[in-house]
Amino acid sequence: MKWLIVVAHGSRRESSNDEVRALTARIGELSLEQFDRVTCAFLELAEPSIPDAVESALLQGAMEVVVMPYFLSAGRHVVTDIPEEVAKTTRRYPGANVRIANYLGSSDLLPSILLGLAGR
Amino acid sequence: MKWLIVVAHGSRRESSNDEVRALTARIGELSLEQFDRVTCAFLELAEPSIPDAVESALLQGAMEVVVMPYFLSAGRHVVTDIPEEVAKTTRRYPGANVRIANYLGSSDLLPSILLGLAGR
Repeated sequence: MKWLIVVAHGSRRESSNDEVRALTARIGELSLEQFDRVTCAFLELAEPSIPDAVESALLQGAMEVVVMPYFLSAGRHVVTDIPEEVAKTTRRYPGANVRIANYLGSSDLLPSILLGLAGR
Repeated sequence: MKWLIVVAHGSRRESSNDEVRALTARIGELSLEQFDRVTCAFLELAEPSIPDAVESALLQGAMEVVVMPYFLSAGRHVVTDIPEEVAKTTRRYPGANVRIANYLGSSDLLPSILLGLAGR
């Protein structure tokens, strides 16, 4: 079973966290055969935490877990905090196949998406 | 002349601000006939400010300015702060054609981009 965890920063505004949950649901509908399950996690201010989400995936039988940083820049959160949060779980499951994908802001497709949103 | 301003939050990490500047340059290369000029601005912590960037576009002859919020959620920055910053300039140029585009996080294309980054 392949499992995708979308990791966002988390916000005091529950509506922002709900945006992430809605995005996660859309990814789940779209992922078809790429991932069997798609869930989300938050670095802070919202639940579930990253360690809890990774452990939950492993305990439910995920053979491969991909953690996707839903962040725009390669700041401390992406470079340091998310790997540390993931490691809190993986050090207790030494054989687990858990990897962290490139963060959203690294996508080559963002320029064309922004131009599309900007309209004519 | 049509002008696009990519508005990011701004960071104490100059490398994060430089990521926005590099993105802006790529959009400029890609925009071809859609926009004559593409620049960036920051809500805080980096320069130029949003009012300065909008005024600079108008003074350089922009007939239409599109402000693109490079933000993932519709929080206070998108809903309140960016419109207020834009209005600081537009209230001094009553005839100016300046509009704020939908923020990045509203794009329907994000799920497929995230799945692409997540890999197989």
